[in-house]
Amino acid sequence: MSNSTSSPVITSEQLLKHWQGHRSLTRRVIEAFPEKDLFNYSIGGMRTFSQLVMEFVGMATPTLIGITTRKWPEGGTTEAPTTKAEMLELWDKTTGEIDRLWPGISADRFQETDKAFGQWEMPIYGLVSYIIDNEIHHRGQGYVYLRSLGVEPPPFYVRE
Amino acid sequence: MSNSTSSPVITSEQLLKHWQGHRSLTRRVIEAFPEKDLFNYSIGGMRTFSQLVMEFVGMATPTLIGITTRKWPEGGTTEAPTTKAEMLELWDKTTGEIDRLWPGISADRFQETDKAFGQWEMPIYGLVSYIIDNEIHHRGQGYVYLRSLGVEPPPFYVRE
Repeated sequence: MSNSTSSPVITSEQLLKHWQGHRSLTRRVIEAFPEKDLFNYSIGGMRTFSQLVMEFVGMATPTLIGITTRKWPEGGTTEAPTTKAEMLELWDKTTGEIDRLWPGISADRFQETDKAFGQWEMPIYGLVSYIIDNEIHHRGQGYVYLRSLGVEPPPFYVRE
Repeated sequence: MSNSTSSPVITSEQLLKHWQGHRSLTRRVIEAFPEKDLFNYSIGGMRTFSQLVMEFVGMATPTLIGITTRKWPEGGTTEAPTTKAEMLELWDKTTGEIDRLWPGISADRFQETDKAFGQWEMPIYGLVSYIIDNEIHHRGQGYVYLRSLGVEPPPFYVRE
């Protein structure tokens, strides 16, 4: 057994892998949607799954830029794709950006408190958790959309 | 700035608070359901929200018992409440059990790999994450149920 103060709950590399594992699942949920339903279907006046995906994409890279540079980008919006293929391409581009930016988060940064985008004051580990949790939350809504369309969603526990 | 190897991404206490914060939100989602819909309503052949809540309850304490004692309990099932008040009572009982059991997770335990319930082999931090993520995922489904019932769900970002 190592010294109890030196064994982390989770390492930075493990947290990145955890997030990218969730993002792989979200990619499969995008793929599972019939193309027209990805852009048009919703329940109870909620957003379409493509709109939710654009939220995930819009949060990921700008947040990592803010975490690593301490300069929070102004809200430039990415033009939303209009086809599933373009959306998957945008997803994969974001995957690469996350992998590229992540190692720039210094070990001490996770425990620092910052005001993200000048608005949300919280520790950086809380901010990263929020992004991941928000994706899980809204992706779960996508599962209901798929089920109500008669489409079997990908298994929740597969994260490769 | 402290030594980079000694600053954790997240501490055990912070992870407990993060989970209990999510559980507070889940409690508000239970409260938001009209009583009959909590037990009867679903979309697309999915489970009712009360069935999902019973899954959360059924995972939390037994998993923490396994993590802290290294003995994974056999699947005794808790009898499902039939009223919202009883379900909230069961929820609060579980909240107390989690708070009681959590400090028994030794610092080194999170990075150990174990076969939970003789079936799911993964690091303990991954197992704890799975339980939290599963709750977020299915609670997101509860949000769709509420919206489709015309009920405004509690805000996702409030975790007190």
